[in-house]
Amino acid sequence: MRLIITSCFSLLFLAGFSQQKISGFFSSNVAKQVEAEKQFDTYLNANDQDTWLKFLSSRPHHVGSVQGKANAEYMAKYFRQWGYETEIATYTVLFPTPKFRQLELLGSNPYKARLQETALKEDRTSGQLSEQLPTYNAFSADGDVTAELVFVNWGVPADYEVLDKMGISVKGKIVIAKYGGSWRGIKPKVAAEHGAIGCLIYSDPREDGYFQGDVYPTGPFRPEQSVQRGSVMDMPVYPGDPTTPGIGSTPDAKRLKREEITTIMKIPVLPISYEDALPLLKSLKGPVVPEEWRGGLPITYHAGPSEAKVHLKLEFNWDMKPIYNVIATMKGTEFPDQWVIRGNHHDGWVNGASDPLSGMVAEMDEARAIGELAKKGIKPKRTVIFCAWDGEEPSLLGSTEWVEDHAEELKKKAVMYLNSDGNSRGFIGFGGSHALEKYVNEITQDVIDPQTGVSIAERRYARALANADKSAKSRLYGNKYMKIGALGAGSDYSPFFQHLGIPSGNVGFGGEGSGGEYHSIYDSYDHFIRFKDPGLQYGIALAKTAGRMMLRMANADVLPFDYSILTSTINDYFSEIKTLIDNSRSQVEIENKLIAEKVYQLAADPKEHFKLPTAKPSVPYLDFSPVENAIAQLKKTTDALKASISKAEKLDAASLNSLNQILYQAEQKLLYENGLPRRPWYKHQIYAPGYYTGYGVKTLPGLREGIEESNWSETKERIEILAKTILKFDGAVQEALSILSK
Amino acid sequence: MRLIITSCFSLLFLAGFSQQKISGFFSSNVAKQVEAEKQFDTYLNANDQDTWLKFLSSRPHHVGSVQGKANAEYMAKYFRQWGYETEIATYTVLFPTPKFRQLELLGSNPYKARLQETALKEDRTSGQLSEQLPTYNAFSADGDVTAELVFVNWGVPADYEVLDKMGISVKGKIVIAKYGGSWRGIKPKVAAEHGAIGCLIYSDPREDGYFQGDVYPTGPFRPEQSVQRGSVMDMPVYPGDPTTPGIGSTPDAKRLKREEITTIMKIPVLPISYEDALPLLKSLKGPVVPEEWRGGLPITYHAGPSEAKVHLKLEFNWDMKPIYNVIATMKGTEFPDQWVIRGNHHDGWVNGASDPLSGMVAEMDEARAIGELAKKGIKPKRTVIFCAWDGEEPSLLGSTEWVEDHAEELKKKAVMYLNSDGNSRGFIGFGGSHALEKYVNEITQDVIDPQTGVSIAERRYARALANADKSAKSRLYGNKYMKIGALGAGSDYSPFFQHLGIPSGNVGFGGEGSGGEYHSIYDSYDHFIRFKDPGLQYGIALAKTAGRMMLRMANADVLPFDYSILTSTINDYFSEIKTLIDNSRSQVEIENKLIAEKVYQLAADPKEHFKLPTAKPSVPYLDFSPVENAIAQLKKTTDALKASISKAEKLDAASLNSLNQILYQAEQKLLYENGLPRRPWYKHQIYAPGYYTGYGVKTLPGLREGIEESNWSETKERIEILAKTILKFDGAVQEALSILSK
Repeated sequence: MRLIITSCFSLLFLAGFSQQKISGFFSSNVAKQVEAEKQFDTYLNANDQDTWLKFLSSRPHHVGSVQGKANAEYMAKYFRQWGYETEIATYTVLFPTPKFRQLELLGSNPYKARLQETALKEDRTSGQLSEQLPTYNAFSADGDVTAELVFVNWGVPADYEVLDKMGISVKGKIVIAKYGGSWRGIKPKVAAEHGAIGCLIYSDPREDGYFQGDVYPTGPFRPEQSVQRGSVMDMPVYPGDPTTPGIGSTPDAKRLKREEITTIMKIPVLPISYEDALPLLKSLKGPVVPEEWRGGLPITYHAGPSEAKVHLKLEFNWDMKPIYNVIATMKGTEFPDQWVIRGNHHDGWVNGASDPLSGMVAEMDEARAIGELAKKGIKPKRTVIFCAWDGEEPSLLGSTEWVEDHAEELKKKAVMYLNSDGNSRGFIGFGGSHALEKYVNEITQDVIDPQTGVSIAERRYARALANADKSAKSRLYGNKYMKIGALGAGSDYSPFFQHLGIPSGNVGFGGEGSGGEYHSIYDSYDHFIRFKDPGLQYGIALAKTAGRMMLRMANADVLPFDYSILTSTINDYFSEIKTLIDNSRSQVEIENKLIAEKVYQLAADPKEHFKLPTAKPSVPYLDFSPVENAIAQLKKTTDALKASISKAEKLDAASLNSLNQILYQAEQKLLYENGLPRRPWYKHQIYAPGYYTGYGVKTLPGLREGIEESNWSETKERIEILAKTILKFDGAVQEALSILSK
Repeated sequence: MRLIITSCFSLLFLAGFSQQKISGFFSSNVAKQVEAEKQFDTYLNANDQDTWLKFLSSRPHHVGSVQGKANAEYMAKYFRQWGYETEIATYTVLFPTPKFRQLELLGSNPYKARLQETALKEDRTSGQLSEQLPTYNAFSADGDVTAELVFVNWGVPADYEVLDKMGISVKGKIVIAKYGGSWRGIKPKVAAEHGAIGCLIYSDPREDGYFQGDVYPTGPFRPEQSVQRGSVMDMPVYPGDPTTPGIGSTPDAKRLKREEITTIMKIPVLPISYEDALPLLKSLKGPVVPEEWRGGLPITYHAGPSEAKVHLKLEFNWDMKPIYNVIATMKGTEFPDQWVIRGNHHDGWVNGASDPLSGMVAEMDEARAIGELAKKGIKPKRTVIFCAWDGEEPSLLGSTEWVEDHAEELKKKAVMYLNSDGNSRGFIGFGGSHALEKYVNEITQDVIDPQTGVSIAERRYARALANADKSAKSRLYGNKYMKIGALGAGSDYSPFFQHLGIPSGNVGFGGEGSGGEYHSIYDSYDHFIRFKDPGLQYGIALAKTAGRMMLRMANADVLPFDYSILTSTINDYFSEIKTLIDNSRSQVEIENKLIAEKVYQLAADPKEHFKLPTAKPSVPYLDFSPVENAIAQLKKTTDALKASISKAEKLDAASLNSLNQILYQAEQKLLYENGLPRRPWYKHQIYAPGYYTGYGVKTLPGLREGIEESNWSETKERIEILAKTILKFDGAVQEALSILSK
């Protein structure tokens, strides 16, 4: 009886979807896929996600902790239970932890920094002091320095230009920078480049404290004594274990000595709370900083230097620690050597409920549901691999070492890598390879938002419209297509994407779960469940979204990479580059004229001692034609591919398989073997984290950073390299085309 | 010997200037004028300005104070000494002062507001407690109210739209608004319109406190207990003595009873310090306010209402007080019935060194120098009148009553009114009738900036360029012409300009003397001389600038009004109006579509209780052709006048005199006798203070405010009125033209 009803329902259901199209599926296979996805949803369970989240966040679980290992084993047990071949892939990596931390303001108003977050009765795990990592920046240098203090805003290169105009040097000084405006590791790197001997980074209340909303435990934002931990390793050069650049940290790996490592910070760096920052900032003399630099503390923000000196002493245990990646594999029924990979890290700085576990439990639910489908006989055609990475926080240790260790196999087999890293209530966000854009748009139209009952695409579009300014609204209106973002750095997709060229994406919800718990002891289950995703509704929404991404990529007849969109996106970036250099040129021209006519001198307040700007060399005209020709060529090829992809349905199995292999490996051709200037690990020529922004992506990074840094000879070289790289990629697409034209 | 050298020098000097042109002067008279101006400069003396400033600011000198009267007599004595017929014109006006002030937060964390500024040893006059006016807003209502508190940002109409979306009403509540964003009197007016029963206005440290720079006495900015006094009379309806709208407050004037006056605030209003505001703002519950609303206090800014109630009790002495205008006249040698008038007020809220005395002492120096020139036989052709107004602070009392008292004579005789109201180091600023634009540009090219040695025009241009963003720089570059600003309200030009249509201007330097002393006990000689204009260099620069304005207008052969520029400016404003209505129309269309499609509903966070926007009536198309035709006609006439003005040199004396009379009276034709909607006192149809902005000017106010308030029937009426007014003005210009065409 029950069976009959089900099949009636299925028939009706299938009839209703007979017209639906899903990119990559032959029309005869669409209904089956839709049905699998529907069934997939029924296995998701918010209560289970809640149980897992509670356990995994119950104690601090950073690299080397007891709970970190226990969490890996807990997850491995589940993955096995759900039918996955599961291993815990272990590597040994350098992971420094604090041995001694001291920060004090000397002089007539001395202050000894507290450097300690406060346990709260409202937060049940905040008192696990003996297991918590102290507040620190991993990969700071050891050091004992005493010097005047200078405030450097975010501490990015542009800020030092402003300081220079104010006549302030950081040479021999300790700098204090606000968190924000760049990835944190940029701050000490740039400070050291300018001669600073120490660096403090504090959380200004304007960024994630009381300025944004009520502080914890009243509201979700950062209280005065809370500190953002975090790594300052020079990851824009290379991530992963610093002792084994480019290779896996296996027992027999050849390792660098500590003194040979270039990515450990050159100066001591310490993150502090705004309670500890306040007396230091108050001690600053010198000019008042520009309005954009000022934060939310009740003081006048001065640039410094301070009259009194600051003493900073830091020592670290430079230990080798084991990390535990959980790798759970379900072999594909038809293409076992094509891998669709999903990952989220499991290590946290402390209890890490939001970052990273909220994404991890959604991934677990996806794995469980795919396991349940398999038990019902609906098995993925391609191999699916669910990964739980350890050591993401210090420097993407787990993912990078595993990717480096398995690089040759991944280049052959990896179809896609899909990452998440935390999740909260709100709006869908996706960044990644633009070949995935159409596929992502289709999926977001098929997942329903738990709060409003419309698709997550519709809701995201509504927010874009509602937030747009008046003039942008008319431009956006009617265009529901979501342009996906480009990926910089900041999570475990980096080794897959930027080092190996595997099509990758990063997915998550957010926008209605803001708070100031990031990398503090308050990123706890108690905080998460009150403020980030009560009831884990968006844990379910993420599992539905990422699950569909896995299932469609695993089961597609023709892999749904749309290289026309990637091409037009590359062309958009290239247009930006041309505008960038043209604007730079006319700005330099105008500025130089204004400098020659003493405009800045006349406009300056003679009572303030600003250094006047000096003339800059003019910006040359460059020959961009190699790139223009390459993109024009690529456009022809990708358009032709798009026009003939429907012929794939007529191919024999072997040809279809060849086509798919070419499609998923094509983006690897966008790598340049020697990588980017001064950082060979980053090989992708379209996307990279900024050398001076960290998280922030630089698209067409060779050209863009060359122009931004006025390095014309390098920019010329990069034009040639980019053009050749695009043509190499074009060659792969032509191969695909030739299969379809047979 | 001395004489010979002088004349040699003069000859050389004259030779050097033989090619110089000054608008309004026949070429034969240019050299004499240039020489007079040069000699004028030699009589200016910063030491004397300093002596006068020290005396005039030595004690509090508000309306009705002993020092106020003494200051009038002190200045009158000097004016007489310099050769001016001088009278002290006295009027009796309503001037409320505090009898009782109480503000307290009730509830579990009670707080009693201090309402008192602190005497500082670094500021010698700050301890004159017995003579200081307490901190208050003049023309607040008496009242005793107890209610919950709501934070309303600036307290302008747009802020109440935001509160409404948050579901917050101020009905029956006391509101607290930040100073800034509008003239202060708008805040209680709009609060009362929305049903509030009391209003507090506080100085947020973001505006003029520690956020901007070090607070007094370390730096110039507002310390925590300092309060901005000020009037809240509804001056956008009419200024001056509220008992005598439109007529002088002479002994026999017919007066309104207090209960008949519409411009006294309907609710009690009190200004407070940020020290007193802090506990009140901390008591607020409800949603966090938008980021633009938040200030510089170390709290989360909530909208409210507060849980605890606030108790505000205010009583005032509603006394009639005498005011003392000093009117110093030097008869013109050729045109005694053509008056060139200069004014600055002399009353302050407390010691008022910067506001207003820094402008007053420059004016005194100008009068002295013109007096010295006269003693040397270089007498002005037209009558010059130097005025020192009393009672500007409460509501432009002195100037308004004098202008209303002498309205008929002024309409016949007043050639120009030139105002200043304080002065400090920095850059020249000028606002006023656009017929003065060319004349102002010429003069600013002839005055040298004391700090840089270039002309004040050149320095102002340098700042505009230096501050412009990158794209604006290329647009500005090469165009040194200074577009003058339009005048709203805020000083004594209002009655001359907006009530009588006398060509007026407001002049002063600023931009390098910022501080937070405004309307507090710290606007003192000690503060001024440290932070605003040390050595009174810019007191001299102002005297040179305004002195030239007086001398050129007094001696011009043909009055230098350029009505072509006024016409093109009116046309620019009219283009803005058309853009305004077109943008409103398309915005309403888009918004209504978005509302219909539930975009705001889908984008909103369901956990926050925002009220969704509702559809607005669409914006109609209006027939602007009457104004378009009128402007086209006026353009023809003013262009023709410009083309033939050189013929004036050939006119006989009587015709030339007629021409000049038409020229200086022409702008009176831009008045409309019934004034603006709901405010007949404001008759000028091109410039008015905004009904809901106060200081801020609204150009073409009838049209602009009609559109802003979506009052279409009124806008249609105002199109007709504006067109007729422009044609009336055109008639006057045609008369001038006909004289030249004879």
